[in-house]
Amino acid sequence: MNDELTHFSSAGRARMVDVSNKPDTQRVAVASGIIRMQPETLARIREGRIAKGDVLAVADVAAVMAAKRTPDIIPMCHSLPLTGVEVSFSETADSAGLRVEVIAKCVGQTGVEMEALTAASTALLTVYDMCKAMDRGMRIESIQLEEKRGGKSGIWRRGEA
Amino acid sequence: MNDELTHFSSAGRARMVDVSNKPDTQRVAVASGIIRMQPETLARIREGRIAKGDVLAVADVAAVMAAKRTPDIIPMCHSLPLTGVEVSFSETADSAGLRVEVIAKCVGQTGVEMEALTAASTALLTVYDMCKAMDRGMRIESIQLEEKRGGKSGIWRRGEA
Amino acid sequence: MNDELTHFSSAGRARMVDVSNKPDTQRVAVASGIIRMQPETLARIREGRIAKGDVLAVADVAAVMAAKRTPDIIPMCHSLPLTGVEVSFSETADSAGLRVEVIAKCVGQTGVEMEALTAASTALLTVYDMCKAMDRGMRIESIQLEEKRGGKSGIWRRGEA
Amino acid sequence: MNDELTHFSSAGRARMVDVSNKPDTQRVAVASGIIRMQPETLARIREGRIAKGDVLAVADVAAVMAAKRTPDIIPMCHSLPLTGVEVSFSETADSAGLRVEVIAKCVGQTGVEMEALTAASTALLTVYDMCKAMDRGMRIESIQLEEKRGGKSGIWRRGEA
Amino acid sequence: MNDELTHFSSAGRARMVDVSNKPDTQRVAVASGIIRMQPETLARIREGRIAKGDVLAVADVAAVMAAKRTPDIIPMCHSLPLTGVEVSFSETADSAGLRVEVIAKCVGQTGVEMEALTAASTALLTVYDMCKAMDRGMRIESIQLEEKRGGKSGIWRRGEA
Amino acid sequence: MNDELTHFSSAGRARMVDVSNKPDTQRVAVASGIIRMQPETLARIREGRIAKGDVLAVADVAAVMAAKRTPDIIPMCHSLPLTGVEVSFSETADSAGLRVEVIAKCVGQTGVEMEALTAASTALLTVYDMCKAMDRGMRIESIQLEEKRGGKSGIWRRGEA
Repeated sequence: MNDELTHFSSAGRARMVDVSNKPDTQRVAVASGIIRMQPETLARIREGRIAKGDVLAVADVAAVMAAKRTPDIIPMCHSLPLTGVEVSFSETADSAGLRVEVIAKCVGQTGVEMEALTAASTALLTVYDMCKAMDRGMRIESIQLEEKRGGKSGIWRRGEA
Repeated sequence: MNDELTHFSSAGRARMVDVSNKPDTQRVAVASGIIRMQPETLARIREGRIAKGDVLAVADVAAVMAAKRTPDIIPMCHSLPLTGVEVSFSETADSAGLRVEVIAKCVGQTGVEMEALTAASTALLTVYDMCKAMDRGMRIESIQLEEKRGGKSGIWRRGEA
Repeated sequence: MNDELTHFSSAGRARMVDVSNKPDTQRVAVASGIIRMQPETLARIREGRIAKGDVLAVADVAAVMAAKRTPDIIPMCHSLPLTGVEVSFSETADSAGLRVEVIAKCVGQTGVEMEALTAASTALLTVYDMCKAMDRGMRIESIQLEEKRGGKSGIWRRGEA
Repeated sequence: MNDELTHFSSAGRARMVDVSNKPDTQRVAVASGIIRMQPETLARIREGRIAKGDVLAVADVAAVMAAKRTPDIIPMCHSLPLTGVEVSFSETADSAGLRVEVIAKCVGQTGVEMEALTAASTALLTVYDMCKAMDRGMRIESIQLEEKRGGKSGIWRRGEA
Repeated sequence: MNDELTHFSSAGRARMVDVSNKPDTQRVAVASGIIRMQPETLARIREGRIAKGDVLAVADVAAVMAAKRTPDIIPMCHSLPLTGVEVSFSETADSAGLRVEVIAKCVGQTGVEMEALTAASTALLTVYDMCKAMDRGMRIESIQLEEKRGGKSGIWRRGEA
Repeated sequence: MNDELTHFSSAGRARMVDVSNKPDTQRVAVASGIIRMQPETLARIREGRIAKGDVLAVADVAAVMAAKRTPDIIPMCHSLPLTGVEVSFSETADSAGLRVEVIAKCVGQTGVEMEALTAASTALLTVYDMCKAMDRGMRIESIQLEEKRGGKSGIWRRGEA
């Protein structure tokens, strides 16, 4: 465990950490999250995709836009020109949850974990928003980093740390 | 369970639901969420608050600003002039988690659930961002609506639905 | 024709016109626009909607979000809490164009023409963005107000003025 | 005609296309558009520029700001640090229209067509906003790419494709 | 002097103060500020307005847009739908300074001081930006509230407090 | 004194200056500003930092976020991916003023003066907002560039020009 809270300056004031001397490297982050719901709600989303609209299409767009706006939402996060964002959804095995996975990429001086995590979180909040009239009790779970590549620390994978 | 996905128009196109004819009422929403971390990380946040900076102060500001920007982040969410936002943090019983609770208020034609939920989610993402150099495996859990008051549907409380 | 450029103050400086004394009324604006393209491009959009993705779903989300952000894009435009936005697409008779129509609503002191027009324009720019690798020569045409209701000037319909 | 809708992933989900492996090159895009209006409206804009304010000055600023915010408005568009934006206006031959031309530049991995097109569109919407009290029937026409340089596809000019 | 820092909750956490129970009243705030510069710089701005462009036109637009975005910039500030913003410039008596005055109005539950002050500050920062290649040493002075009307505290005027 | 207002094109239209051919260099800017207040207000901020909340923590976050959003606020300012932002506060000698200093850094084609100045200004406006219920007459003074390094013009320091 790295013994440092890097976002505070010596005077105790929060700051955007200086990365001026870090080299540009290719960076990738994968984040995921789950929204738990009633099976009927999931069934409606599934049908809805075909019959009358697409909850996941809206959640997908929201996630990509949130990835781009992450430095505007997370105070000490650096601005990064993302080179790619990809969002995918799958149902959980018990048919009472929807899982999102986001892959974010950039060539830059800092990682893109926050972009991937913020996008995953926004996708699930959007699903909540669009279905809340049906199922107010939905719950977001397990927003987490799955993998991270690039930069000084190399490759990190959940479960291998 | 309300049998409607209200965000899709009859032609199957996602829309911002028409609330023109709803009356303005006083509305409150309470949302919460948890971030799980290593006990050492939580200890560092706790000390940091006193000794050298305040992770929670940054997370608090991020949450209030995210509440105000929710309609800009969640695609089909209405714009609402919030009348109040309050954020509080507490440690979980096992000293390996931090819980956030957000109360959002407005006087308006639609509810403020999304504002409270987006703020809670942003607070926890900000904690992740500020501590990730120490503890990359932190996980966000249980982002959920706790209570909702105002509007046609009256009072809703988690566990009573 | 009203003989006034209302956005300039007596000193010649552009301003946001004072509407403090106007009453809140129910307001509706309908705007439309067309994007011209090669018939093959339109065919691909049409198929894509079913087979492999949905250009129009992305354009629809972009339009709703742009409607909400209009006062942030159009300098002298007032901020208005929209009560509803609805977007629909149709093909032109010659199968070489896509038409968008946006209905925007609010209860407020000024009209929502700019919200409807900005949303229509953004929908078509998004279609361009998503198809430009196929057809760089696409052209946006006829972005115009179709109808406007509410406020002192009552109902206005294109062609009846 | 390139046979690909590049913004959809293999699973049919819209994405921000991965450009991580594209080299940085100098890029230029030129876009234009026209707003049609009553000759009296154009005369007023022309006079206004001298006598009592400057519609085009406001439209110019709106265009430059919109160019910078394009990735925030067009969902699947990459974020690019623009190196220059230039806006110019001219009257159409029949004195019943105003033409805008925008030149956008960057050094980056993707083109700046969307920035130029969004800026042109925003300039004309701003003209509409500032003159709508006089002439509600104004119509935006011919928003189109005129020229594009840089990147793998080299130089593209309208009419030569 | 009011003995309260109202933006902190009882638990010491910054919050957006709850104004749910305040009545809507007509509110006005007037703020001003000055930018000091070399007389040659001011002369160039003055000429520029006529001959080759208009620094003040850009600063004016920046101020109006900043007024609208104030709640997005100032963390604990409420969102308010402004009903009017007016910006004016004048030269200081010594011909080495430019003064801006901004009048902001709304009908709402809280005041618009922050909108007027943020707009004034942004106007002067914009002047700095546009002239900095000529005169890097310019200095912004005396950003202050001049007058405030509406709400429980009635009329406040600088110098009369 | 450089004889040029670089933000206007030859046709007199404001533009974002073309920096496409400038090399990327390491850039630093330091800006500062002061807010004058009643000694009692400053005492309350000082206590508040310990006892019940932290005005400066909120102002610090506001400053860092404003630095990142500068190109979105200052019309002709280039977008720059900042590599570091650091904010510090100190009391003035007479105990009736608070001074902020902001250091902004990037590796890019243009300077970061505007980012540092906008952040300093936003920090002080935030202090005003959080204390205005106590002391409406507070005044912002001396927002100025202290130092600038990098780019063609090399090092500039206030007082040495």
